[in-house]
Amino acid sequence: MTETWFPSLKTATPQEGFELATKLARVGVKLTQPSAEVRDKLRTAYEQDVAQLIASSQVIAIHFQTVAAANNYWCD
Amino acid sequence: MTETWFPSLKTATPQEGFELATKLARVGVKLTQPSAEVRDKLRTAYEQDVAQLIASSQVIAIHFQTVAAANNYWCD
Amino acid sequence: MTETWFPSLKTATPQEGFELATKLARVGVKLTQPSAEVRDKLRTAYEQDVAQLIASSQVIAIHFQTVAAANNYWCD
Amino acid sequence: MTETWFPSLKTATPQEGFELATKLARVGVKLTQPSAEVRDKLRTAYEQDVAQLIASSQVIAIHFQTVAAANNYWCD
Amino acid sequence: MTETWFPSLKTATPQEGFELATKLARVGVKLTQPSAEVRDKLRTAYEQDVAQLIASSQVIAIHFQTVAAANNYWCD
Amino acid sequence: MTETWFPSLKTATPQEGFELATKLARVGVKLTQPSAEVRDKLRTAYEQDVAQLIASSQVIAIHFQTVAAANNYWCD
Repeated sequence: MTETWFPSLKTATPQEGFELATKLARVGVKLTQPSAEVRDKLRTAYEQDVAQLIASSQVIAIHFQTVAAANNYWCD
Repeated sequence: MTETWFPSLKTATPQEGFELATKLARVGVKLTQPSAEVRDKLRTAYEQDVAQLIASSQVIAIHFQTVAAANNYWCD
Repeated sequence: MTETWFPSLKTATPQEGFELATKLARVGVKLTQPSAEVRDKLRTAYEQDVAQLIASSQVIAIHFQTVAAANNYWCD
Repeated sequence: MTETWFPSLKTATPQEGFELATKLARVGVKLTQPSAEVRDKLRTAYEQDVAQLIASSQVIAIHFQTVAAANNYWCD
Repeated sequence: MTETWFPSLKTATPQEGFELATKLARVGVKLTQPSAEVRDKLRTAYEQDVAQLIASSQVIAIHFQTVAAANNYWCD
Repeated sequence: MTETWFPSLKTATPQEGFELATKLARVGVKLTQPSAEVRDKLRTAYEQDVAQLIASSQVIAIHFQTVAAANNYWCD
């Protein structure tokens, strides 16, 4: 991925920060499995798998910690 | 989700902060599996599955770290 | 749960803080599976399951990080 | 457990801090499964189980973060 | 590994920080399984395994927390 | 272990810090399974097991957070 996909951790609102965290969780998968075709095939399965949905939610939670700290919890 | 569902990390009490953390854990699942129908079907199963209940509790714990820090641990 | 069950993160000692962390880990499960009857049935099984005992210990550890930080590690 | 088993997060050295983290990980299990008899029976099994050994190491790592921060990383 | 492979946590952009986090996650595996031959054989399997892809994404998320903090969230 | 194996969290470089984190992850296993003989037997198995390799990498990542913070991210 030579394009710029991640210019900043700053977001205007907590909600946009949560969406950025979700994106980062997905990019983490993409960097490990670069084939879109394989990921699409896998997605159908794991979207029905509770353990994987909760695991995905956990990765989002970890990234959201980072995004929230970077934005000083949107308190400024 | 174009509506505003997450305006602030601030809550009046630790208990409300814990409830916000629980909500964030659920939204993390929702953003990965947007179909309410599928989620409802899955919920029946995982609510009987100890591993998934503890995993859910862990995601809540991670989000609660963020919410508690954002509220300066309700010490102000 | 409309009652107040979580008024403060402050505790007098690290040990009470650890007990609060344990309580928070259990509430995280309770908010996901509100039926006491189902939880009691599940408890018998998971208390014999090493993986779930260690997973529970991990959720306590994450909450204890939050409680300890809120109490400034009981250094004041 | 009405006795005092956890008076302080302070330790003299990083090594003692690591040992405290190990103790906290075990107490987390103990608070979930209070029967020493059951825990002894389970221990024999999980000490041969790589996944559980690594999971235990992870809980120690999380507690060590807390202990290290409480001791200002033993820099004072 | 006697060569220098990790001179600094500093990166110019968040995106480069994310790539460093991805590298650190891989080195963590490499230090545990030093054989490139074995890792290559395993890679083919786990790149098709959703649970392992999400677990990899989680390790990246944890390292990214460290890299982001080291760079003061690229706010300077 | 009565010998001193962990005198300090300070390291000269990030790379040495990463190696210390790797050591701490291993000690966490050692404190739970003290028999070198059993650990050697288990190692052969888990070094071929992707899930355990990634789990090991995760424990390293958690310890590296602690080591990096203790060294102020090697910024001084």
